Amino acid sequence: MKDALQDLSKSSEKFSRLSLSHGKRTRLWRLMYGHGPRNGSLLVLPLDQGLEHGPTDFFPNPPAIDPDYQFRLAVEGNFSAIALGVGLAEKYMGEWCGQIPLILKLNGKTNIPSDAEATSPLFASVEDAVRLGADAVGYTMYVGSPRQHDEFRQFEKVRQDCERFGMPLVLWSYPRGAAIDAKGGKGSLYAQDYAARVALELGADIVKLHEPDDSRSNVPKPYDTLQEDASARTQRVVRSAGRTMVLFSGGEKNDDDAAVLRKVEFYMASGATGVMFGRNMWLRPLDQAIALVRQVHQIMAKHPR
Amino acid sequence: MKDALQDLSKSSEKFSRLSLSHGKRTRLWRLMYGHGPRNGSLLVLPLDQGLEHGPTDFFPNPPAIDPDYQFRLAVEGNFSAIALGVGLAEKYMGEWCGQIPLILKLNGKTNIPSDAEATSPLFASVEDAVRLGADAVGYTMYVGSPRQHDEFRQFEKVRQDCERFGMPLVLWSYPRGAAIDAKGGKGSLYAQDYAARVALELGADIVKLHEPDDSRSNVPKPYDTLQEDASARTQRVVRSAGRTMVLFSGGEKNDDDAAVLRKVEFYMASGATGVMFGRNMWLRPLDQAIALVRQVHQIMAKHPR
Amino acid sequence: MKDALQDLSKSSEKFSRLSLSHGKRTRLWRLMYGHGPRNGSLLVLPLDQGLEHGPTDFFPNPPAIDPDYQFRLAVEGNFSAIALGVGLAEKYMGEWCGQIPLILKLNGKTNIPSDAEATSPLFASVEDAVRLGADAVGYTMYVGSPRQHDEFRQFEKVRQDCERFGMPLVLWSYPRGAAIDAKGGKGSLYAQDYAARVALELGADIVKLHEPDDSRSNVPKPYDTLQEDASARTQRVVRSAGRTMVLFSGGEKNDDDAAVLRKVEFYMASGATGVMFGRNMWLRPLDQAIALVRQVHQIMAKHPR
Amino acid sequence: MKDALQDLSKSSEKFSRLSLSHGKRTRLWRLMYGHGPRNGSLLVLPLDQGLEHGPTDFFPNPPAIDPDYQFRLAVEGNFSAIALGVGLAEKYMGEWCGQIPLILKLNGKTNIPSDAEATSPLFASVEDAVRLGADAVGYTMYVGSPRQHDEFRQFEKVRQDCERFGMPLVLWSYPRGAAIDAKGGKGSLYAQDYAARVALELGADIVKLHEPDDSRSNVPKPYDTLQEDASARTQRVVRSAGRTMVLFSGGEKNDDDAAVLRKVEFYMASGATGVMFGRNMWLRPLDQAIALVRQVHQIMAKHPR
Amino acid sequence: MKDALQDLSKSSEKFSRLSLSHGKRTRLWRLMYGHGPRNGSLLVLPLDQGLEHGPTDFFPNPPAIDPDYQFRLAVEGNFSAIALGVGLAEKYMGEWCGQIPLILKLNGKTNIPSDAEATSPLFASVEDAVRLGADAVGYTMYVGSPRQHDEFRQFEKVRQDCERFGMPLVLWSYPRGAAIDAKGGKGSLYAQDYAARVALELGADIVKLHEPDDSRSNVPKPYDTLQEDASARTQRVVRSAGRTMVLFSGGEKNDDDAAVLRKVEFYMASGATGVMFGRNMWLRPLDQAIALVRQVHQIMAKHPR
Repeated sequence: MKDALQDLSKSSEKFSRLSLSHGKRTRLWRLMYGHGPRNGSLLVLPLDQGLEHGPTDFFPNPPAIDPDYQFRLAVEGNFSAIALGVGLAEKYMGEWCGQIPLILKLNGKTNIPSDAEATSPLFASVEDAVRLGADAVGYTMYVGSPRQHDEFRQFEKVRQDCERFGMPLVLWSYPRGAAIDAKGGKGSLYAQDYAARVALELGADIVKLHEPDDSRSNVPKPYDTLQEDASARTQRVVRSAGRTMVLFSGGEKNDDDAAVLRKVEFYMASGATGVMFGRNMWLRPLDQAIALVRQVHQIMAKHPR
Repeated sequence: MKDALQDLSKSSEKFSRLSLSHGKRTRLWRLMYGHGPRNGSLLVLPLDQGLEHGPTDFFPNPPAIDPDYQFRLAVEGNFSAIALGVGLAEKYMGEWCGQIPLILKLNGKTNIPSDAEATSPLFASVEDAVRLGADAVGYTMYVGSPRQHDEFRQFEKVRQDCERFGMPLVLWSYPRGAAIDAKGGKGSLYAQDYAARVALELGADIVKLHEPDDSRSNVPKPYDTLQEDASARTQRVVRSAGRTMVLFSGGEKNDDDAAVLRKVEFYMASGATGVMFGRNMWLRPLDQAIALVRQVHQIMAKHPR
Repeated sequence: MKDALQDLSKSSEKFSRLSLSHGKRTRLWRLMYGHGPRNGSLLVLPLDQGLEHGPTDFFPNPPAIDPDYQFRLAVEGNFSAIALGVGLAEKYMGEWCGQIPLILKLNGKTNIPSDAEATSPLFASVEDAVRLGADAVGYTMYVGSPRQHDEFRQFEKVRQDCERFGMPLVLWSYPRGAAIDAKGGKGSLYAQDYAARVALELGADIVKLHEPDDSRSNVPKPYDTLQEDASARTQRVVRSAGRTMVLFSGGEKNDDDAAVLRKVEFYMASGATGVMFGRNMWLRPLDQAIALVRQVHQIMAKHPR
Repeated sequence: MKDALQDLSKSSEKFSRLSLSHGKRTRLWRLMYGHGPRNGSLLVLPLDQGLEHGPTDFFPNPPAIDPDYQFRLAVEGNFSAIALGVGLAEKYMGEWCGQIPLILKLNGKTNIPSDAEATSPLFASVEDAVRLGADAVGYTMYVGSPRQHDEFRQFEKVRQDCERFGMPLVLWSYPRGAAIDAKGGKGSLYAQDYAARVALELGADIVKLHEPDDSRSNVPKPYDTLQEDASARTQRVVRSAGRTMVLFSGGEKNDDDAAVLRKVEFYMASGATGVMFGRNMWLRPLDQAIALVRQVHQIMAKHPR
Repeated sequence: MKDALQDLSKSSEKFSRLSLSHGKRTRLWRLMYGHGPRNGSLLVLPLDQGLEHGPTDFFPNPPAIDPDYQFRLAVEGNFSAIALGVGLAEKYMGEWCGQIPLILKLNGKTNIPSDAEATSPLFASVEDAVRLGADAVGYTMYVGSPRQHDEFRQFEKVRQDCERFGMPLVLWSYPRGAAIDAKGGKGSLYAQDYAARVALELGADIVKLHEPDDSRSNVPKPYDTLQEDASARTQRVVRSAGRTMVLFSGGEKNDDDAAVLRKVEFYMASGATGVMFGRNMWLRPLDQAIALVRQVHQIMAKHPR
């Protein structure tokens, strides 16, 4: 309790700058100082892959098909929050309530149809999040999709409800769709940098991004000739996100623990507020995952925010 | 009455785990312990084929064109519930009220246009279900359809109304549409396994699935090389559905009673909560159907849930 | 008055079976026993052809362009009701209020664009019908149209408003659209039989159908090999409509009075609740139309419902 | 004042026939007997061309680009009303309030995209009209457009709001779209006759039409062989509109004053309730326009309605 | 304070002509006489390029990626207002509240997908603007886009909310889409002149336009043969906008300060109410930008409105 109070004083300058409402401040504090590393950084465990990719994502570690597995890992691994949808929250959070903050993912889709006109429909509301005691909501925006008009309109309502209920808003800002593919793909610095700025302009509190790669073919000017190393690229997207806090995605599973830890270190050193690693956590046997997350905590501890 | 109280105590552990509201608990109890096998398993008689496939489905047993036939069978055969739409409920349930629980099917479509962009529009609401005294609602989701964004949005409202009114939600989770066809068809383990997980993630209480077949051509990795027998496949989709209870569909009529009974036994042994057999029940003459359902009850009795 | 009371007692068994609300019961009684044949059968005069087909439909009998003509015919010919849209009701019903029940047609369209994706938009509401003192509403559903999802959704609201206001619902259940054309056309037994069942499943109180023809080319199985005469076909669709009462359409004008009367006799003998003849009534000079409708009444009198 | 009372008595028979609400009666009276010719006929000055066609329409008379010009002409020329959109009403009506009734045009579009799927979106509401003190609203319907379903739905709300607020509804009933083009174009008797009836069926109080021409190529039967002169054609569409009062459009500018006057005389003699001439009025210098409108008044005076 | 009162008296004639509500009058006064040049002219700093074009727009002056840079410039440069979206307002305006009026941009899009069917979706509301203490809202309309029907409908709600809350409405009136491209492009006098009139007809208080160029190829008649110099063209569009006040856009960055100042002088001399220059301001180092804006103020001072 004493630690938490110290953290609160540490956090006060940063938080006052953000003009947060009482509700948002309370809930963000709980994520940033009440759970996880408790130093302003964020370590989030996502579990939306079953919907987004199908059960195939759990094949490398069969016990992970049972959401209890991820809840146990999130609690024992001392994560800042677990991020998942309303079906999983309703049916599995009962035993874990109060032990791990919830980021309720509001929209999603299967990956069965083509992503050419990708859009992510809502299947839950901010009111669901309030009802379930969540400390934030998650929303996926497919930046640059031909259907961005539908997505912006849908997002407006979510953002306004977040304002009304004091609910922090985490944006999965994902470049996607035929035009992104034609302009060099979703991984380029061009795409990730634009996605970071969109999150800021639209009003996200936290944005989840992917590390920009160095692909430059078909990428619009002046990105096609920009020669920046991984560090410069990653710092750039953090800068473009401005006061919207950046979490980097872990992406596909990497069996090499050291490589995973190097990524965490690299993202934090680049200015990220935290990481959102799913498959690189819960596709390991529980004891290995716990061991790995402890090492992650040691890195996060060196990067207070 | 004494039996029911015993059942209630039997059911308590399972139900408390689900964090159900009073309304959902009351209604689910009525389906699982108040009617049908009364041991936590479910035996549901569906009658939406007249809309979904047209009157042709009744041709093998002409009396079945009159919905009174199915109501009589549901009551005399001691089913857990009858599942049908608002038109049939309004016009035929009057004489049978209180004798058989109703699962009101809220959406549907004809099979006249192509299923390439299949979507199932609502034609009734959860409020209709409340007004009609239903104990659950049914909803069809075409998983993987190009129109899944419309379906998810529509589903959100239904799920929230179910929450508001304490109404259990049964999802007909059906892979469908051009992308499913291109990825090996609706019957594959890939498709059924994904459909099971979608039901869980979106918040269904009960899901109706089809037994996955062994088709693997054009199926995405790693399902294309997965060598599992029927039992392993069926257990897999039950596992993917997690705490969402699984009912298996009976599909097209099979004249061989023994084969029908083997299917029931197989599904229950694979972990299903029950079965939803329509044509395999009401396309038999009434006395034969009653005789068959009695044998089904004997199987269900061996598989309390 | 005494007759009406007798009729009421006659009607009581049938009506109680339908579990009708007070409002629906009152209004249906007015249509079935308070006007027209007063024996439970229905003789309806439709006037939506000016919108659906354009003024061309009135060319064979120029006075029919003035809606007063049809109101006069409906009253003097002792029809059960006149069916028309809100524009005609607002501007012409003033002088005839109380003398002829109104079925307010809520949706419609011109036939100028192609019917490949036919849909019939609402241009009036059940509340309009209540305000205008109507005894039922009419709604056109294009069964099997590629836009059936829009139509079902739109219909849901109408049906619920009918429930709320106690307003009987008459469905013009019309197979239409590219898929219907590809499957043998709108007149086949396949198409009309499906349309009859859709009306029942969706919750219509009364359905308007066309007599099924014997076209079998391109028609889906098993209808393509079904050898039934006109009588068997017509009885079949009446049976498929179940407790939804069937009215048969008169279709295009037939100058042969005897042929028209034979059709009425045929439909009533096949189990129909009544007929909805427009052009075969109001495209005759008024005195001839009155004379013809008197003969129709003689037929209807032989078929109490 | 005495004149007005006399007019009121003159108008009473016609008005009672229409079953108008107090609000509609009051406002229509103001248009038909309180302003303009004051004999039941209507002389309306439209100014929606800047939106519908762009500023190019004002080129022949540059002062007409300033809406003050049309307000001055409407007042000094003693028009029955001026018809324009909410932007012009808000910014220019201030000085003229009370001197000229307003018909607030609720929807519109630019002519930049193709008219193949023409639709005219709302950009103001009946409530805007009430707030601005309008005596009627104007609404454009593109009859026969592939998007007629959207238009009908949109129109329904407008008509109902008109009913609620007692606001007369003037329909610009314009055949338009790919199907109209394929069936002989928007000017044919077929197209205008259908447009007249649509206005009646959908519930317009007043309809604006174009004089039907004699084009018969590609026109549907039986219009393709109908041999009627201009007078017969024009009377026919007036007749098809029934109790919906018809205004004829002036169309493109004609420099010949006598020709303009002959058109007015012709339309009134054909049964029209009035004319809506814009460019043929405000594309003349103010004094010439005033002189012309005085002659129009002399014609209108001969045709009380 | 004395100055402000004098300004108020100066402004009274102009303002009374506009029939403004108290709310609009108060807020417009603040923009036109309370900040910036304080003589009725407007000098607005826009910052929506990060969303509309991506972070690439900030590359020429890296500090400009931090929105604090533009806030500082707006305050120190004494702009009339800063125009930006809800995300930037929420996160950066805290320190600057009260020092610079806010024009909250309500809609926007990325430039990733093609502009062929351009539409700009809302992502904030007039209520957001009220909550944030804004003095106007900004709205982008893509004039002539194939989706103009969606845009008009969306705009209607915004305009009505502006009326309800007394919020001035600034329209970014931008010709765009496949039909504009086919008719000579977005920069032509035809396109800009039409855009100016659309702003007036739809009810904008202020419109942002681009200087029309002299492109005439593919431009519709009579613009294709109109021989006007830059001054005549620019005055024409100001005239077409009528009582809607015109701001001209600065467009892409011009390194030549003198050229920028000549543009300001030219626009004001052509009748504009002001300018909205973004990149030509904030892509200069802060001290150079401040120096430039001081010279702009000297020009504006010569053009009271």
